[in-house]
Amino acid sequence: MDNKRAYNFSAGPSMLPLDVIEDAAKNLANYKGCGESVMEMSHRSKEFKSILSEAEANLREILKVPDNYKVMFIQGGGTLQFSMVPLNLMRKSGKADYIITGSWAKKAAKEAEKFGDVKIVASSEESKFSFIPEVEKKDFRSNADYVHITYNNTIYGTHYPYIPDTGDIPLVADMSSCILSEEIDVSRFGLIYAGAQKNVGPAGVTLVIMREDLIGNAAADIPVYLDYKTHADNDSTYNTPPCFAIYIAGEVFRKIRNEGGIAALAKVNREKAGKLYDFIDASSFYKCPTREKDRSLMNVVFVTGDEEMDKKFVSEAKAANMHNLNGHRSIGGMRASIYNAMPVEGVDTLIDFMKKFEEKNK
Amino acid sequence: MDNKRAYNFSAGPSMLPLDVIEDAAKNLANYKGCGESVMEMSHRSKEFKSILSEAEANLREILKVPDNYKVMFIQGGGTLQFSMVPLNLMRKSGKADYIITGSWAKKAAKEAEKFGDVKIVASSEESKFSFIPEVEKKDFRSNADYVHITYNNTIYGTHYPYIPDTGDIPLVADMSSCILSEEIDVSRFGLIYAGAQKNVGPAGVTLVIMREDLIGNAAADIPVYLDYKTHADNDSTYNTPPCFAIYIAGEVFRKIRNEGGIAALAKVNREKAGKLYDFIDASSFYKCPTREKDRSLMNVVFVTGDEEMDKKFVSEAKAANMHNLNGHRSIGGMRASIYNAMPVEGVDTLIDFMKKFEEKNK
Repeated sequence: MDNKRAYNFSAGPSMLPLDVIEDAAKNLANYKGCGESVMEMSHRSKEFKSILSEAEANLREILKVPDNYKVMFIQGGGTLQFSMVPLNLMRKSGKADYIITGSWAKKAAKEAEKFGDVKIVASSEESKFSFIPEVEKKDFRSNADYVHITYNNTIYGTHYPYIPDTGDIPLVADMSSCILSEEIDVSRFGLIYAGAQKNVGPAGVTLVIMREDLIGNAAADIPVYLDYKTHADNDSTYNTPPCFAIYIAGEVFRKIRNEGGIAALAKVNREKAGKLYDFIDASSFYKCPTREKDRSLMNVVFVTGDEEMDKKFVSEAKAANMHNLNGHRSIGGMRASIYNAMPVEGVDTLIDFMKKFEEKNK
Repeated sequence: MDNKRAYNFSAGPSMLPLDVIEDAAKNLANYKGCGESVMEMSHRSKEFKSILSEAEANLREILKVPDNYKVMFIQGGGTLQFSMVPLNLMRKSGKADYIITGSWAKKAAKEAEKFGDVKIVASSEESKFSFIPEVEKKDFRSNADYVHITYNNTIYGTHYPYIPDTGDIPLVADMSSCILSEEIDVSRFGLIYAGAQKNVGPAGVTLVIMREDLIGNAAADIPVYLDYKTHADNDSTYNTPPCFAIYIAGEVFRKIRNEGGIAALAKVNREKAGKLYDFIDASSFYKCPTREKDRSLMNVVFVTGDEEMDKKFVSEAKAANMHNLNGHRSIGGMRASIYNAMPVEGVDTLIDFMKKFEEKNK
């Protein structure tokens, strides 16, 4: 790793693989000798069409996306998905069930309330979102148009330890902060969406993986960009897509495919998070507020119990080349986001720093 | 100019200044020694906040944006603006007047029809959009909530030779293919929007310049991302913005500021387009179908009158390192898009090629 590069523990945007960045830099003014930057390419050119189709093919391969699912690259982030999901899916009973496991889940539910009847089926808010509620099939309304979950909760450092059984009701999952970090059975979900800026690529593109039979049910009078059919029918090029962000995402997909797939990454992710949680749990200085079985492998939240000490930690870590260890501005404390691109040495360096900080300050 | 780089006449995405690309490449893995790529930066970091605020300040300076206008960077392209404009502005009488000067203007009007009463005040469709209609204040409905125009028509190669007088009715302009190419009096408009991928930066970000009193009038139940107030109140960071695209746009703004501003660019643009139109008009082999006073300085449309010959032209030009000279897929023929970043030598090279092609094929 380049000595001058920081270990960036940001919750997103966050680290990308250095070899992907360096290759992009080498090709930035002239992509593979075609005479143009990817930033300058017509989205209708054969060069860009090939970038787009290869990105989709590699994503399908590494995530084992079934043939009856469409893959789309859409702008607007998770926030636009919060609206698109109800506008497209709340179309039979007009009812949708949400499980609230953090601020993003709440925002998603609040947005859906604009468009139909939202029921909060379970919430861990009273426990400051420190765990994932157990929810069973009988808890959902039998005629709900879909169930929405936030599979990994970036702010609170939790992750579903199970996939809720919704029976025939389509399950919609926001996977922004865990996509590509673990193997998933796509067929258990009706729709998966994920902002790119954590495990995929630069901000500005959102992956949507959607079962085909769910597409095409939106009302005719919704904004054309918010109808999934617009994107599905036009291979994500109804209008000019965010070409450069898709290109970088595609480079990340290819790298994952070439380096053992998601299984190999998931193993490293379990090791990285495992050693960090083990260290925190063994310490009397640091504390992780999340229930053990619900802990995220991507976002490791911890505190010293003293706000001023937390701030000192974040500031001294920054000086030691470990960036963005502050918790989300809404809750404070510390958070180490250790996405796919965070090397093992980054976690080792952090643990080493935590040890020394504890010795000096306990 | 790097010999290996093509002259890219694409209508968008299209050429960016080579020095901007090369500087971005140099900083791609480590922006100004901060240890992170701009693609990896937290959008809440001081580094990115500085990129964002400098981009806005430079844009305000070069476009002379009055203080009572907000500048926003939004995802979703012109297509999302086609919906956002009526959802935010069609709020008093529910009426809006559109002038139809090409396919994009038609799409904008069609989208607005979903949300209210749209009147087509004038159209040049019967003349294949070869001119810009003359429209006077009396032609607009006095209680229209806004008037919408497409200031430069990328596909048909036309540009308004005047700014319609709408009196007190806010004038909304799609300036995607001419923004930054000419000096404009922003105060004549209520709202200006422009997809970045022509004169500004990579695809994936849209500039919106909006008079403050027009913000905050949307219904409470529209998608949160589609309310301009969401973006205006949060300095374009309500959710994660397309950071890298904004960064490149900011580099382009700074370059324009440092190199004489838009006046200097506009002079070169008049010269580039002038010599190309002069050559076409003097030729008996090529023909420009647009009315002379309405011609675009950015998109120069021409034909030989023989479809097969047009295809041969495009193909041989490509082999001679001049890319994307085909007209839009909906109308065929040729189109040379010569945005700010197309060097004078690119136009000279094209004219030279056109001369030789004519000699061989007339």
